[in-house]
Amino acid sequence: MSMNELARRVKDASIKLAGAETELKNNALAKIADALQQRKDEIIMANREDLQRSEQEHLPAPLLKRLRFDEAKIMDAVDGIKSLIKLEDPVGKTLLSTELDEGLELYKVTCPIGLIGVIFESRPDALVQISTLCLKSGNGVLLKGGSEAKETNRVLAGIISEAAEEAGVPANWVKLLETRSDVDEMLKMDEYIDLIIPRGSNEFVRYIMDNSRIPVMGHADGICHCYVDEDAGIDMAVKIVVDSKTQYVAVCNAMETLLVHNKIAAKFLPELKKALDAKQVEMAGCPKTLAIIPVAPAGEEEWKTEYLDYKLSIKVVESIDEAISHINTYGSGHTDSIITGDKGKAVRFMNYVDSGNVFWNCSTRFSDGFRYGFGAEVGISTSKVHARGPVGLEGLVIYKYKLIGNGHIVEDYANRSKNFKHNKMNKKCPM
Amino acid sequence: MSMNELARRVKDASIKLAGAETELKNNALAKIADALQQRKDEIIMANREDLQRSEQEHLPAPLLKRLRFDEAKIMDAVDGIKSLIKLEDPVGKTLLSTELDEGLELYKVTCPIGLIGVIFESRPDALVQISTLCLKSGNGVLLKGGSEAKETNRVLAGIISEAAEEAGVPANWVKLLETRSDVDEMLKMDEYIDLIIPRGSNEFVRYIMDNSRIPVMGHADGICHCYVDEDAGIDMAVKIVVDSKTQYVAVCNAMETLLVHNKIAAKFLPELKKALDAKQVEMAGCPKTLAIIPVAPAGEEEWKTEYLDYKLSIKVVESIDEAISHINTYGSGHTDSIITGDKGKAVRFMNYVDSGNVFWNCSTRFSDGFRYGFGAEVGISTSKVHARGPVGLEGLVIYKYKLIGNGHIVEDYANRSKNFKHNKMNKKCPM
Repeated sequence: MSMNELARRVKDASIKLAGAETELKNNALAKIADALQQRKDEIIMANREDLQRSEQEHLPAPLLKRLRFDEAKIMDAVDGIKSLIKLEDPVGKTLLSTELDEGLELYKVTCPIGLIGVIFESRPDALVQISTLCLKSGNGVLLKGGSEAKETNRVLAGIISEAAEEAGVPANWVKLLETRSDVDEMLKMDEYIDLIIPRGSNEFVRYIMDNSRIPVMGHADGICHCYVDEDAGIDMAVKIVVDSKTQYVAVCNAMETLLVHNKIAAKFLPELKKALDAKQVEMAGCPKTLAIIPVAPAGEEEWKTEYLDYKLSIKVVESIDEAISHINTYGSGHTDSIITGDKGKAVRFMNYVDSGNVFWNCSTRFSDGFRYGFGAEVGISTSKVHARGPVGLEGLVIYKYKLIGNGHIVEDYANRSKNFKHNKMNKKCPM
Repeated sequence: MSMNELARRVKDASIKLAGAETELKNNALAKIADALQQRKDEIIMANREDLQRSEQEHLPAPLLKRLRFDEAKIMDAVDGIKSLIKLEDPVGKTLLSTELDEGLELYKVTCPIGLIGVIFESRPDALVQISTLCLKSGNGVLLKGGSEAKETNRVLAGIISEAAEEAGVPANWVKLLETRSDVDEMLKMDEYIDLIIPRGSNEFVRYIMDNSRIPVMGHADGICHCYVDEDAGIDMAVKIVVDSKTQYVAVCNAMETLLVHNKIAAKFLPELKKALDAKQVEMAGCPKTLAIIPVAPAGEEEWKTEYLDYKLSIKVVESIDEAISHINTYGSGHTDSIITGDKGKAVRFMNYVDSGNVFWNCSTRFSDGFRYGFGAEVGISTSKVHARGPVGLEGLVIYKYKLIGNGHIVEDYANRSKNFKHNKMNKKCPM
C-alpha cells in the first residue's frame, strides 16, 4: 500500500473515531490493557530480538536501556492505560454556550484534532502511551518508531490495533510506519496529517520542524535556568540547584545554566561548589564567578549549551532584570525557576520570564506531565500556540462551533428586522 | 533601523506588556478611542490621499470601497474599541489549580502569546481592530498593511502608538512596516515573531503559509456547503440556501457548493432555481441536477472552486454519508450547514463533518466573530490546532504553568520519601 493510501485510510478512520462514545473508547483501552498482559511473552520475545541485534550493532548502553521492554515495563504500560481509562473524556465538553437569538444557539464543543503523526526514537513504551492517549482523545495516529525497536513496535502496534478493533473501534485508526523514508513522506502529507509530535534528540526535532508545513508540537532543546536571587536562603538554594542539575541529567527539564545575584554570589557559590563537587559536576563560569570559585571559564557559547550531562554554566548577574533578560535571550522557553524569599520578585520573574513553566522555590525537574497530575503526557511543548508545557489529553483536542437554528438567516439581522441577544447560557450542547 | 532591530524592540516591549494590568490596558484603549475622534480630520485627509492615488492607479471599485475610511467608519472603529474595553481581560485567568503536595501548588494561567505579525490588505479598519485586540490581550504587534492604504495606515498607527504610550503602555509595542520586502523578512523572523495572522486573498494567505516556519493562524479559502437532507422543509431550505449564497457573496462564509439528497431533489431544486434566478445567481450542477433543472454542468473542478460571486455548484447525493464525505474531501473546514427536520441526522452531520463551524437549520453566513458575540475578531481560522472558527481575544492568549514551592525537590518523590497528592484546588493563582 502506498503511504498516501495508508494516510488516507487512517484519516477516514479518524473521522469515524471522532464521533465515538466514551464507553467504546474506554472498553477498547481495557481490551488493549488485557491483550498486552496476555501476549506479554510475544512482546518480550520480539524485544529480545531487538536487543540482541542492537547489541551486535553496538547501540550505546543508555539507548539499550531505553529499548528494553520487559515484564515490569509491560505492567507499567498496563497501569498507565488503566489510569487513562479513569481520566475524563476530553472530547465533547461544552466550552461556551450562547443564545444568539430566540431559537439560535451557539455551542463551542471540544473535538479531536484529527490525524496525528508521531515520530519517536527507541522507547517502545512511548508507542503504547501515545497511541492510547490518541485513542482516548479520538485521534487517528500514524506512528513511526526507531528501527532499533522495530520488532517490539510491530508486535505492540498489532496488539493495540487488534484489541481496539475487537472492541468496535473503526479499523485503521492506528498504523505503524516502518522505513526511514516514511518520515520524509509523512512530513509532506499536510493534506491528511493535522499535527506532528516528534520525540527525540534536538537535531531530530529541528529537522522535523524545518521540513514540514504541518504544525509541530514538542520541544527541540531544554536550556532551563535557576536564578538565585539576593533574597534566597542559601540552604534552600543549594538544595534546589543540586536537584535541578543532578536528579536526572539526561532530560530536558534539568537545569543547564545557573544565574546568581551579585550580592549573594560570594556566600552562595562556595557552598554550592562543595555540594556539586560531591556529585562530580563540572562547572564553568563568567569572570565574576571565576573571581569567587575556581572553575572553567564560560561565555556566549556556554549560555547556549544544553549539556544533558554533569556540567553546569554559571553567571553572576547584577539584578533580577538581568536574569530575566538572560533567560529570555538564551533559554528555550521550557522551565525556569527563581529562588528568593521575596514574593514581589517571584511575581516579577514569573510574569516576565517567557517560558511555559515558571517556578518559585522549587526544582526545574517538576516540569512533567505525571508530576503535574495529568496522568500521562505526549511530550513537553515549548511552542507559543495551542499547548505549552507538559501536554496530556487536553493538548490532543481542539473545538468546533455548533450552531443550532430553526431557519435563521443573516439577512434578517443585516436589515435590522431582528437583533442579536448574545445571552450566556451555561448549557451543555444537546448535539 | 534594520527590520531585525525593529522586531527585537517590539519583542522586548511585548515582554513588558505581558505583565501590564487590565486598568492600564483599558486606559490606553480609551485614550486611543479619544485620539481617533480628536484627530479624525488628519485621518480623513490621509485617506483621501490614498483614495486619489489608488483611483489614478485604477484600483478596482470594491477595493476602493474597502479602502475608504470616512467619519462613519472612524466612529465604528471607536465604538469597537469601547466594546473591547468592556470585555474581560483574557490574560491572567487561572485555568487549573492543583496542590501537588503540601506547599507545592501548580497553576495554569493565561498569558499573551508574545509578538504577533499581522499582514493585511486595503481595509484600514483592520489595522485599528487588530492592534487594539493585541493591546487588550497584551501582545506586541508588527503590522504590514497594503501599499494602497499607506498614508491612512501611517496616521492610524501613529495615533494608536502615541495614545497608548501616553497612557503608560511600554513604547514600541506596535510598529508599522511599510515596504513589500518587509513581508518576506517578517516571514523569516521566527526568533522574534510567535504567530502570523494574514488577512487577504487565498493566494496571499497560501504564500504566507508556504514561506514561513512561524505558525500561521487564518484561512486560505472558504468553500462552505449547505446540505439539504431528504427530511428538510422546502421553504426553510430555500430561505437558508439563498441567504448562505447571496446575503454577501464576496466573503469566506458564503456557500459555494450545495448538496441535495436524491429523494428531495426533484421537488426542491426547481423551487430553489426560481429563488436564485430572481437574484441572478449562475448555477452549475452534476448530471443528476441537470436531469431536474437546466443549468451548466459541474464536476471535480467546480467542487474545488470558491466563487466569491453570484455562482453556485450543485450536487445531488444518495445519502447523508455521501454529503459528509464530499464536504470532508472538498471543503475548507470552514463552515457547513445541514438543513433537516431529523435531529439524529443533524447530530451525525455535526459530529462527522470536520469543520470549525457546523450548523443545523441556519445560514453559513452566521460564522463571524461579531455574530457569535465575541465583540471583535482577528479573523477566522481553519487550522486544526490552537484556535478554530472566528478568533477573538481568546485566540490571542496561551498559558504558562506557575509552580510555587518552598524548597521542594524531585529527589524526595523519586526516592518515595514524599508522595504527590494531586488535589484539585479551584483557587485563583496568587502570583
